[in-house]
Amino acid sequence: MKNFLDENFCLQNETAQHLYHRHAKLLPVIDYHCHLDPKLIAEDYQFDNLGELWLRGDHYKWRAMRTNGVDERFCTGKDTSDWEKFEKWAATVPYTMRNPLYHWTHLELKTAFGITKLLSPKTAREIYDECTEKLRTPQFSARGLMLHYKVETVCTTDDPVDSLEHHIKLAQEKFPIKALPTWRPDKAMAVESATDFRAYVEKLSEVSGCNISSYKDLLVALRKRHDFFQSAGCKLSDHGIEEFYALDYTDAQIAAIFNKVYGGQELNIEEILKFKSAILYEMAVLDWESGWTQQFHYGAVRNNNTRLFRQLGPDTGFDSIGDFTVAKTMAKFFDRLDIDNKLAKTIIYNLNPRDNDLIATMVGNFQDGSVAGKMQFGSGWWFLDQKAGMEAQMNSLSNLGLLSRFVGMLTDSRSFISYPRHEYFRRILCNLIGTDVENGLLPKEELGFLETVVEGVSYWNAKNYFDF
Amino acid sequence: MKNFLDENFCLQNETAQHLYHRHAKLLPVIDYHCHLDPKLIAEDYQFDNLGELWLRGDHYKWRAMRTNGVDERFCTGKDTSDWEKFEKWAATVPYTMRNPLYHWTHLELKTAFGITKLLSPKTAREIYDECTEKLRTPQFSARGLMLHYKVETVCTTDDPVDSLEHHIKLAQEKFPIKALPTWRPDKAMAVESATDFRAYVEKLSEVSGCNISSYKDLLVALRKRHDFFQSAGCKLSDHGIEEFYALDYTDAQIAAIFNKVYGGQELNIEEILKFKSAILYEMAVLDWESGWTQQFHYGAVRNNNTRLFRQLGPDTGFDSIGDFTVAKTMAKFFDRLDIDNKLAKTIIYNLNPRDNDLIATMVGNFQDGSVAGKMQFGSGWWFLDQKAGMEAQMNSLSNLGLLSRFVGMLTDSRSFISYPRHEYFRRILCNLIGTDVENGLLPKEELGFLETVVEGVSYWNAKNYFDF
Amino acid sequence: MKNFLDENFCLQNETAQHLYHRHAKLLPVIDYHCHLDPKLIAEDYQFDNLGELWLRGDHYKWRAMRTNGVDERFCTGKDTSDWEKFEKWAATVPYTMRNPLYHWTHLELKTAFGITKLLSPKTAREIYDECTEKLRTPQFSARGLMLHYKVETVCTTDDPVDSLEHHIKLAQEKFPIKALPTWRPDKAMAVESATDFRAYVEKLSEVSGCNISSYKDLLVALRKRHDFFQSAGCKLSDHGIEEFYALDYTDAQIAAIFNKVYGGQELNIEEILKFKSAILYEMAVLDWESGWTQQFHYGAVRNNNTRLFRQLGPDTGFDSIGDFTVAKTMAKFFDRLDIDNKLAKTIIYNLNPRDNDLIATMVGNFQDGSVAGKMQFGSGWWFLDQKAGMEAQMNSLSNLGLLSRFVGMLTDSRSFISYPRHEYFRRILCNLIGTDVENGLLPKEELGFLETVVEGVSYWNAKNYFDF
Repeated sequence: MKNFLDENFCLQNETAQHLYHRHAKLLPVIDYHCHLDPKLIAEDYQFDNLGELWLRGDHYKWRAMRTNGVDERFCTGKDTSDWEKFEKWAATVPYTMRNPLYHWTHLELKTAFGITKLLSPKTAREIYDECTEKLRTPQFSARGLMLHYKVETVCTTDDPVDSLEHHIKLAQEKFPIKALPTWRPDKAMAVESATDFRAYVEKLSEVSGCNISSYKDLLVALRKRHDFFQSAGCKLSDHGIEEFYALDYTDAQIAAIFNKVYGGQELNIEEILKFKSAILYEMAVLDWESGWTQQFHYGAVRNNNTRLFRQLGPDTGFDSIGDFTVAKTMAKFFDRLDIDNKLAKTIIYNLNPRDNDLIATMVGNFQDGSVAGKMQFGSGWWFLDQKAGMEAQMNSLSNLGLLSRFVGMLTDSRSFISYPRHEYFRRILCNLIGTDVENGLLPKEELGFLETVVEGVSYWNAKNYFDF
Repeated sequence: MKNFLDENFCLQNETAQHLYHRHAKLLPVIDYHCHLDPKLIAEDYQFDNLGELWLRGDHYKWRAMRTNGVDERFCTGKDTSDWEKFEKWAATVPYTMRNPLYHWTHLELKTAFGITKLLSPKTAREIYDECTEKLRTPQFSARGLMLHYKVETVCTTDDPVDSLEHHIKLAQEKFPIKALPTWRPDKAMAVESATDFRAYVEKLSEVSGCNISSYKDLLVALRKRHDFFQSAGCKLSDHGIEEFYALDYTDAQIAAIFNKVYGGQELNIEEILKFKSAILYEMAVLDWESGWTQQFHYGAVRNNNTRLFRQLGPDTGFDSIGDFTVAKTMAKFFDRLDIDNKLAKTIIYNLNPRDNDLIATMVGNFQDGSVAGKMQFGSGWWFLDQKAGMEAQMNSLSNLGLLSRFVGMLTDSRSFISYPRHEYFRRILCNLIGTDVENGLLPKEELGFLETVVEGVSYWNAKNYFDF
Repeated sequence: MKNFLDENFCLQNETAQHLYHRHAKLLPVIDYHCHLDPKLIAEDYQFDNLGELWLRGDHYKWRAMRTNGVDERFCTGKDTSDWEKFEKWAATVPYTMRNPLYHWTHLELKTAFGITKLLSPKTAREIYDECTEKLRTPQFSARGLMLHYKVETVCTTDDPVDSLEHHIKLAQEKFPIKALPTWRPDKAMAVESATDFRAYVEKLSEVSGCNISSYKDLLVALRKRHDFFQSAGCKLSDHGIEEFYALDYTDAQIAAIFNKVYGGQELNIEEILKFKSAILYEMAVLDWESGWTQQFHYGAVRNNNTRLFRQLGPDTGFDSIGDFTVAKTMAKFFDRLDIDNKLAKTIIYNLNPRDNDLIATMVGNFQDGSVAGKMQFGSGWWFLDQKAGMEAQMNSLSNLGLLSRFVGMLTDSRSFISYPRHEYFRRILCNLIGTDVENGLLPKEELGFLETVVEGVSYWNAKNYFDF
């Protein structure tokens, strides 16, 4: 019987252990997609206590607590203290066994704080106190945690209107970890609300210094900001979309739609989808022109709980996996770019694992030999960012594409302590490959090459692909 | 090499064996959803022979026999004897290896009759005779079998117009096993046929003592029957639906639709769906008011074989897994209830396993902290009620929710001998958890807590959740 | 640790090894669906070199090469030699580890050429030379390879207008391997282009000797060709369809649609789908009348890359898995045939594994007891023709139908060297069953019966089902 979370955690055989300990674990971390607040890095934020670090923004934990019968006051309430929330969380933790939260929680305690005790009501107070004490020391500042986890590069997620002041400051300071912005223009296509869209366009106009009174102006302003992002080191874009959009349209139609919505009129569904189709295409062309990589996170159905959305806003744990029909539209979107020779490097992240095989074959349609692994099937996203989800993604990618060319893991996280997910991923990767070797499904004579594959997927593929 | 169906069947390691033998197997059975005929319990029915017990109503077996090339005469025919049918079934059994029928058949022979011989043409006669002889003794009556399997509570499935006379009789007799009714108002929303709907409403009017000449009257009558069911101990409702229905509607529209269909006119599809949306909502509110749990079995495409439907009617083995698009409508349905604070405890059973992860995240949107595991992802249903199906459901639930709060297994069966499916489920549950412990994915130091989880999912969670 | 690709490749335990070595591997190969060019068999084609054999038409390999960053010139280019292409392929091979290409490549080298070296840039030249030398000997001709692999029957894929001259010649020559045609009338329902359809109908008119100026004439001509195919030994049809088509229509409507498209007018979508519904039904009736087996390969989204489609045409590696909604239409299509008692033996191949369980239950709706396994869930197709895909198909079939009645493997290949995929399949089959026995999920006492199951799925079921 194996021990929980010991050095061979998730590594079920010797080949897996060899691949991890001698190769994967030695490499730094590239976290090419996350939601860290760059301000906290810039000001080297110091956390006050473990409750703050863990519970102020983590909707995964809130969901688990609600499921465990914990009142909302102890999840997001303003009338309860960090300790009171933590106490409820600690009581929930044993009930999360078999959920990734159980692994993440103890991986974080072990790798950040050196704590190997299991969190439960019995250990809650001592763990809280020990971690809180450490968190108030300089090694546990935002930057301290990143350095501790051997982070080499992080890419945050930023709106075109952002000033990027913190990224610029960090670059000027020569902070040893690259903190690069990512271009996420979701709001530039969010024409569902005429008022919100108008406000956003006005903000964009102000920030870009471009008068915007037409669709053409909008594109000019976006391009200007895109150039600015590039000057600040940006190499990736990202899009959070329900589905891909690839309706046929003419520029004249889009110009008219812009005028309508900018003029304050609500659009009908077809107009909304045409507008999204146009912007998504134009943004993809900008990325291609700049040599960036475009990312698409699609398939979530968000804010399903109206009652709590009104109370708490978005990203509070009320989203779920959608079931969109996607193949033909996705193919059309990429084909339209490819036919114009304007298809940038691309990563597709799907949220419904039933589409894993579909995506793994979709990327194959647009591999053009220009860059190894140009079209990427992204690592298990959000709900799928767990052992079974990562294994399913890597197995689909292996069966239907080339695992060896995979750019690997990212945290997608708001937390400064989520880096052990890279460790988790690498262990799972090594275990998959090691198990195949032990079972005679991969040749042990090629162990040297497999070490290269493991190092590639852990670090080097991303480094080369993104040109970090 | 392990022995087939010995005491450690499905238990691949010592931890799994410990969890099962020292914990799971010691607990009684709560079968909170089944299709037993309460009349057979009330009159303590005695089966005549093994062919009757096994083959008169079991469409799983008929499907396997048809697939194996057995003529319909030997499945459902009236001109063949129970023995003749059984003989064909026995000849089919070896061909079902790897199908759950092979496990179920031998689990039933072993646990009910103490027979460990394998069923095949060679053993058919002796097994038939031995079982038939036993079936004619008092210990093998309907009640005898239930007591033998340590059943504590069963919930049958009943129409609002049912008299519940048998449930009432059983309660009065103080039969030691609780046999409670379940409210299944499918026919109250079956407006596809104006004639059938009219007939049903007239029946409902008669039974409830309410004149029904409007939609409002219909709701009054349903509420009266709902109260009656509650007085008879009912604590659950159930709905057999293709999809969730959540169209927008006004009460005036529904009143007009009622008048149209009640007046004998056929409805168009939109009217049908609006009516279903209204009734499904109103039934959910009744359940919430009564503190019941509502169950939804969705996703089947039924009666696909018209030729045999005309001959044999429904539930004869011609149904299959559907592929409905469900996420947004399902979210809208529950949101509409939640926003009014009228969302009852809920169990969702899906029939297409491609939606397991979707459902596991959907329930998370409406966990409100009021009851642990308020929203439940139901155990593998129908075609999914087998080892792989149950493992997939429990793995999705684990990864995306809390397995520890799961209310566990039910038979969904018409048979008095299907209770070993609870044993099968518990073995599979223990094996999943035991294997994780042995692999170091769960901490062996927390074995005590895991024992509690196993006992909870096997028995206590259901007992507490349904308040039995 | 096991050796790669040794005699126990994929056979993880002794029971699996026993089932394979003593049973499965001893049987000849029936390849009841492939895309071999019958001309190459008839003329006993001799390959010039390994590059030609492997790379001139294999879009699986091209896709992998493009993904690995290989320029199109070295995939399909006319200005590069077979050796130059092979060199790029050899450099790609190590990067395909965990992809089925890695197994297929080395299985082919081992079983055809006796080469156990691993292909990589280091070994490329010697392997190329050794294989090329062998390929130029008589034992390695098209026929030689087929005989080497113990092929007993192959069914090619042929258009109704084909002369079948090569099949006829082979039969006359008494070539010991049966090479039978398969009726694939896709073009008879391809009314998307009026011009292409007209040209096809004219060709059909010429070949059949029937004047075709109406829908009725078209059916007469098709029937005549169907009879001709039967006279040439044909026993199977095949349809490559995106989805099943089962719209309601009248013959008068179809006659009018025929006139319209034959007259040169483009059809709207409803007309196209109605026409396809009619032809698909009529072709199914012909198959039933002839006692053939009908095959449906559905669910691909083809030719997604317009740029390269224009350059290279279809079947060049730009297809992917679709996500069609299929359950109700598929049921309607088969029901319409069954209700008329005109449903032929049928094999359904799906391309999206998310539908495996759906298909496994769909076939159950139309099993009528006339033939064991009358309705078949086809083996993992195309992208799913790999270890995980075959295991998933066999597990779904086992859980929801009868694995024992499965007609088993086919190559679906254009290559004379793809027969080791039958070996691969048999190993995987034996491993599934052997593992269940070792784990106590199947009874070791029934090993004799399981040997029969293995032999059936490997060979006998197909032999009997197709009446070869």
